[in-house]
Amino acid sequence: MLSLEQLKEITRQSDSKIVLLVIDGLGGLPRPETGRTELETAHTPNLAELASKGTCGLTDLVSPGITPGSAPGHLALFGYDPTKFIVGRGILEALGIDFDLKKGDVAARGNLCTIDEKGLVTDRRAGRISTEENAKLCKKLNNIKLDGAQFIVAPVKEHRFLLVLRGEGLTGDASDSDPEQVGVAPLNVVAHSSKGKKTAKLANEFAAKAKALLADSHPANMVLLRGFSRHPNLPTMNVIFKLNPAAIAAYPMYRGLAKLVGMKLLDTGATIEQEFDALAKHYTEHDFFFIHIKRTDSTGEDGNFDAKVQTLEEIDRLLPKITSLNPDVLIVTGDHSTPAMLKGHSWHPVPLVLCSKWCRTDHVREFGETACASGGLGRFPAVEVMPLAMANALKLTKFGA
Amino acid sequence: MLSLEQLKEITRQSDSKIVLLVIDGLGGLPRPETGRTELETAHTPNLAELASKGTCGLTDLVSPGITPGSAPGHLALFGYDPTKFIVGRGILEALGIDFDLKKGDVAARGNLCTIDEKGLVTDRRAGRISTEENAKLCKKLNNIKLDGAQFIVAPVKEHRFLLVLRGEGLTGDASDSDPEQVGVAPLNVVAHSSKGKKTAKLANEFAAKAKALLADSHPANMVLLRGFSRHPNLPTMNVIFKLNPAAIAAYPMYRGLAKLVGMKLLDTGATIEQEFDALAKHYTEHDFFFIHIKRTDSTGEDGNFDAKVQTLEEIDRLLPKITSLNPDVLIVTGDHSTPAMLKGHSWHPVPLVLCSKWCRTDHVREFGETACASGGLGRFPAVEVMPLAMANALKLTKFGA
Repeated sequence: MLSLEQLKEITRQSDSKIVLLVIDGLGGLPRPETGRTELETAHTPNLAELASKGTCGLTDLVSPGITPGSAPGHLALFGYDPTKFIVGRGILEALGIDFDLKKGDVAARGNLCTIDEKGLVTDRRAGRISTEENAKLCKKLNNIKLDGAQFIVAPVKEHRFLLVLRGEGLTGDASDSDPEQVGVAPLNVVAHSSKGKKTAKLANEFAAKAKALLADSHPANMVLLRGFSRHPNLPTMNVIFKLNPAAIAAYPMYRGLAKLVGMKLLDTGATIEQEFDALAKHYTEHDFFFIHIKRTDSTGEDGNFDAKVQTLEEIDRLLPKITSLNPDVLIVTGDHSTPAMLKGHSWHPVPLVLCSKWCRTDHVREFGETACASGGLGRFPAVEVMPLAMANALKLTKFGA
Repeated sequence: MLSLEQLKEITRQSDSKIVLLVIDGLGGLPRPETGRTELETAHTPNLAELASKGTCGLTDLVSPGITPGSAPGHLALFGYDPTKFIVGRGILEALGIDFDLKKGDVAARGNLCTIDEKGLVTDRRAGRISTEENAKLCKKLNNIKLDGAQFIVAPVKEHRFLLVLRGEGLTGDASDSDPEQVGVAPLNVVAHSSKGKKTAKLANEFAAKAKALLADSHPANMVLLRGFSRHPNLPTMNVIFKLNPAAIAAYPMYRGLAKLVGMKLLDTGATIEQEFDALAKHYTEHDFFFIHIKRTDSTGEDGNFDAKVQTLEEIDRLLPKITSLNPDVLIVTGDHSTPAMLKGHSWHPVPLVLCSKWCRTDHVREFGETACASGGLGRFPAVEVMPLAMANALKLTKFGA
C-alpha cells in the first residue's frame, strides 16, 4: 500500500465526480430460517442493477476479525489507515456539535448518569433525560473552575455532553471514568503514561465537583467521562486527493468525522430522501460526496431484522435519485456490519459495489454478502476504497517509472 | 508478509526450475459490444489448459487502484516491495543500454525535443528522429564540460538518450526539466532538498549548454531531462532466493530491471518465438527464468484491441515450447493491465496462473479476468508471487519453530 505521501504525488484534480454512499452497518448475518442476510432478504432491484453493471467485493474496514468503531470504519473509507490515525471519542463528540477546538485542547465524551446513595451507577444514561434538561445541567457544570485548565461543558443530545479541557500540558493519555456497566462506582481516571497525569488529575477533580453540583438533580446526579483525546490533525482529503469533498450526514458523529478530513458539511434533513435530495441540490458544487445513512445501523443494533430489511428497501427505492445524476464513480458500501442477529457492530466484511465506466464488470448480478464474495474486487481492506475510487474517476497518474 | 531478511532465512537452493512468463500489459477491459476483454476474446486453449491444471487469481502489482509503472510492476513480480524499492527512470534507462554505472552516479532520462523561436516545446520527441541522427547529436552533447561533475551522454532509441552525472555529492533529489506537455518552456530543474542542489545546478547548466550546441539541429534543438536517480542497490535474487536467475527480454528497460536484481541477461531475438527458443536453449543453465513479452502492452497502448488479441493468440500457440520443458513451476501473468479501451497502463488487477505439481488446483478452467477473479489464489499483491513460486518449487523451508 502506498503511504499518503506517495499517494499524494499521483493524485490529480479533474471534473469527474465520485459519490460514496455509506450505509451504516450494511453487512449482516443470515436469519437461520431462510439462510439469507438482511441485504439478501431485501428486494433491491436498483442495487442489483448496480452490481450487474459494476464490480463487487467484500471489504474489511480494519482487518479480518476486527470490529470497527464508527471512526476507524469511516477513516478507512476516506483513505486513512485506521490503525495509524486514531480519533478519540471526545474529539468526535466535539466535531459533531461544531465545537471550535483549539490546538492542544483535550476533549472527552460525557454522560449524565444516575448513581445511588452508595455512589454506584444505576443508569449510565440518567433515564435519557431531555436535551433541554441536559442543557440546564451543563450550564451548571460550566461554572466549575479548577487550577491548571479551563473547563468547557457543552450539551449534546439527551444525556450526552462534551467536556473540553483547555490549558498547557494536556494530552488524551488518560483512562475513562465510565465503567460501561451499572452496579459499580464511576472509575478513577488514571494516566496511561506520565504525559496523561495532568489530564487525569483534573478530570478526577472535575468529576468530584460535578458530583457535588448535581447532588440534587436526580436522575442526572453524576457524570461519566470517556474517550479523552486530542485533535489528530489529519491531512485533509483536499491535500491528499486534490478533491473538493462534501458530506451529507444527519448525525453529529459522522458530520464530525467528515469535517476531520476536511469535508464541507452540507445542509440536509434526516430522512434518506432528504439526504439524496441534498446531493442533487449541491451536485455541481463538489467533486466528491460522502452520504451517510444511519438507520440500517440503528435497526441492526436493535436486533430488528425486518426494520433493517425495510430500510434497505427504502434506500433501494430512492437510489435512482443518485444514479440519475450519473456520477463518474458510485460506490455503495458500509462502515462495518451490524447484523440484527448480533444486535451490534461486527467484524464481518462489508459488501461493496463500485460502478464506473472503467470498473471492469464482474459476474456478480445481485448485491449481497455471498454474491459479493466472488466479485472482481475480491476481499480487500477498506483503506483501498479511495485509491480505487480515484483510479476509476481517472484522477490518479502512474506510480513509478 | 515476511521481510526480505526473513524470507532469505528460509530459501534454499535446489534443482527445481521456475519459469515466470510476464506478458506486459496482460490485463484488459471488455469491449462494450461483447463484454469480453482482450484475453477473454482470444482463442487460447493452451492457457486454458494451464488454468485447468493450475491455480488462478488476480494480482495487484502495487495495490488496488494504483497504476504501476514498469519498474514497480516488475520489482513486485521479482519479490521486491515496489513501495519501498524505488527505481528512478534514469537508472532504468542506464541499465537498459548496459551502461556501466559507477557507485554514486546519477542518471536521467533525456529526450531530444523541438522548441520554437520563443523557446516553447512544440514536440517532446523531436519528431521521433532516427536512432542514427540521435547518436550524432549525443556525440556533440558529450563535449559538454562543466565544473563539478563529468557528463556522459549515451543515445538510446529514436529521440531518447541517457545522461549520467559522475562526481562527488550528487543525488537524484532533483525535479524534471521535462514539462510533459507542449506549449510551455522546458522547466528549471529544482532540488527537492538540499541534497539535490548540486545535481539541479549542474543539470540546468547542462541544459543551457545543450540548447546552444543544438541550436542548428532542428527538429532536435533542445533536451528534456527527467527521472534523476541513483542506483538503488537492491539485494540480488541470488542473495534473497538462492536462485541462479536469467532473463529473456528484448527491450532495454526490462533487461535493465532484470539486471538490477541480479539476473543474467540471455541473448534473444525480439519475436515471441525467439524468446521461447532462448529459454529452451539455456534451460539447463539456470533455475529461474523471467521471460518478458512486450507486444501485448504496445498494442494495448495503441488502443488496438484486435492486435492485442492476436498477440495473445500467438503466445498461446507458442506456449508448448515452454510447457514441453516441464518446468516445476510455471507462472503466467503481467506487470500491469494495458486495456486497449484505455490506451495505457491501468490499475486493474492482472490475471495470474500458477502451475506446479503442488499448486492445489482450483475450479477455474479458462484464463481470463472474470474467471481468475474466483480462482484459488484470490486477489493478492504481486510481491507474494515469488514466495508462491518458491514454495511450489519446494525451495522454501518452514518459517519459525
